[in-house]
Amino acid sequence: MPQLRPSCYDARVLRVTFNPGPSQISEETKADLACAIAERVADISHRSSEFSEISRRTIEAIRTFFSVPQDYAVFFLSSATEAMQWTVMNLARERSAHFSCGSFSELFGSVSASLGRNATFFSVEWGTKNDYVVEMPPDTEMITLCANETSTGLMVSDADIAMVRARHPEPMLAVDITSIAGITPFSIPQADVWLFSVQKCLGLPAGLGVIFLSPRAVSRGLDLEKQGMRAGPFRISAMLEKMKKYQTVATPNVLAISLLGRTLARWNERGGIAPLHAEALDRLSLINAAIDRQPQLRHFIAEPIDRSLSVCCFAGNAAAVATLHGKAASEGMLLGKGYGKIRETTLRIANFPSIPRQEWMRICALLSAPL
Amino acid sequence: MPQLRPSCYDARVLRVTFNPGPSQISEETKADLACAIAERVADISHRSSEFSEISRRTIEAIRTFFSVPQDYAVFFLSSATEAMQWTVMNLARERSAHFSCGSFSELFGSVSASLGRNATFFSVEWGTKNDYVVEMPPDTEMITLCANETSTGLMVSDADIAMVRARHPEPMLAVDITSIAGITPFSIPQADVWLFSVQKCLGLPAGLGVIFLSPRAVSRGLDLEKQGMRAGPFRISAMLEKMKKYQTVATPNVLAISLLGRTLARWNERGGIAPLHAEALDRLSLINAAIDRQPQLRHFIAEPIDRSLSVCCFAGNAAAVATLHGKAASEGMLLGKGYGKIRETTLRIANFPSIPRQEWMRICALLSAPL
Repeated sequence: MPQLRPSCYDARVLRVTFNPGPSQISEETKADLACAIAERVADISHRSSEFSEISRRTIEAIRTFFSVPQDYAVFFLSSATEAMQWTVMNLARERSAHFSCGSFSELFGSVSASLGRNATFFSVEWGTKNDYVVEMPPDTEMITLCANETSTGLMVSDADIAMVRARHPEPMLAVDITSIAGITPFSIPQADVWLFSVQKCLGLPAGLGVIFLSPRAVSRGLDLEKQGMRAGPFRISAMLEKMKKYQTVATPNVLAISLLGRTLARWNERGGIAPLHAEALDRLSLINAAIDRQPQLRHFIAEPIDRSLSVCCFAGNAAAVATLHGKAASEGMLLGKGYGKIRETTLRIANFPSIPRQEWMRICALLSAPL
Repeated sequence: MPQLRPSCYDARVLRVTFNPGPSQISEETKADLACAIAERVADISHRSSEFSEISRRTIEAIRTFFSVPQDYAVFFLSSATEAMQWTVMNLARERSAHFSCGSFSELFGSVSASLGRNATFFSVEWGTKNDYVVEMPPDTEMITLCANETSTGLMVSDADIAMVRARHPEPMLAVDITSIAGITPFSIPQADVWLFSVQKCLGLPAGLGVIFLSPRAVSRGLDLEKQGMRAGPFRISAMLEKMKKYQTVATPNVLAISLLGRTLARWNERGGIAPLHAEALDRLSLINAAIDRQPQLRHFIAEPIDRSLSVCCFAGNAAAVATLHGKAASEGMLLGKGYGKIRETTLRIANFPSIPRQEWMRICALLSAPL
């Protein structure tokens, strides 16, 4: 058998990854995976009652964990990008608007434009927050925002989302929570579409996207279908029909659905999102204290209130950043590189639940030590 | 932790599944999965050089195994259904035509129609083969056919595909090989698009689709883009750009890409598709001999030449079919139910490489025994 293992990912060499996704896989998830294989989750038909039961339990665990109202639909897709495409294809016929403050908030708008929609971008400089008090073009059908901009580490609060909704009540509001879903609560009734993937805070192997849909969004999608919009095989009516049996239009990533259910069931038993949020806040204060002691680094996001809980982004000169990557690597730790145009002058540290606390203490010590 | 195991899938109770997908997972694949997790394949960034290397090796293994010409593009998607959607969105602006002889060949046409294309169906009765000598509507941009109709067990030969191409040389020819890919060779240069997923003959967990694209199809897709067709974030130009580094537009199912590479690398070392094809033919003759001894069953596909190598479909009265399901279950074997409108009066047996030969002998014995 050919050697498929890139040596730098030998577990003996790389102990932990702080890259903001795909994230560190926890020991619990590794055990879940072994268990799922032993229990033949990967062999079952996606049209069997056994699959329906796994899927039902996962969806119930999702509803409990994220406090998703019963009148919201929950669907499985294969990635957050596909979920963005799905949202545009099903809910926006002509015109969308996008709050952009980095690569991933921009992406939602690019997806809409690439599908031929008239997409308006409200863009601000990377590292700063959008001004939500803007004039929406008339007939805007959908507004998107990214609750946690992975490229810069900027987080939008639940209060911000409430403000966007209050200010622009008519259009569908779609919120990408990809890199924050799992460690901070959102008021789901405040928006029409929530989407995320599982390889970030949820700590699972990549290849599954999840979407929540308000009753208003469901109605809107069904209306657009009746009016002749052709959203393809994954159109909302087809998804709803399959979901009556907790099934999906295409053969899904059954294993990932099972792993997501196992993770969230465990987390629900441990008290839900609150303890995960508290732990993330505690770790954030630890890493902030470390940065305060490091003269070579500063927060990329100037305003403390806008800093992400899950993706810590620190800026420094390119030499200091390179030194830190090297020091971390020599200790078996992989840091996240900066993203896009700030690749060389920032680094990103994922504050994800799958990272053991002792590793978090190590990264804090490394960041605060003299370079 | 809640009990997520449906008891009938307890490995002690169900020894083997003959359901035609998702298929039996082999012991080798289970070992690959454990190995991939230990080697941290699920933790790596999909934008890292380590991922690029895994993906490159998988794509090379695919090219070798399926004899994909170097000038064909190979892309990863998440399912065969998504691959159908992708094909229509990228390659057919207005008009497509579809040879339909069962649920899955029909599906490709339904996908096209659901995306607003003018889809012409050439349909025949389930169990019979299409007549390819038909008059195509003028300006047909794409023809689709299913090389292995999973709902009925009807197989289209490589010679049939050559005939379709010769008869209708202008339109793009797209061939769905989902439930046969891996055990019978196809002449890839004969068609423009080949698509499949990995949970059938390849014996892998579901959640990965693969597509091959001829240079003509690539040109056509790029031309349509230039002419203003808006195929979305997964448009061909974006896929090609990412594939320069063996990467994907969205975060892919990294684990499945790794498992596919490992499976095909192993199969390539063992002589490629030829021994798998020979073994499948041998097993087919064994099961045919068993059916010959069973007065209660007959082949659903009348013409021997049209019978699938990978999905054996047998018809009988509903009572005989139910008896066989029960007998099989009592011996720890799951048979595939009939599909759709022939659910009660047929049963399907997957002839997939992941099924151990001793289990194949058992199912043959069971089928031939008096009911």
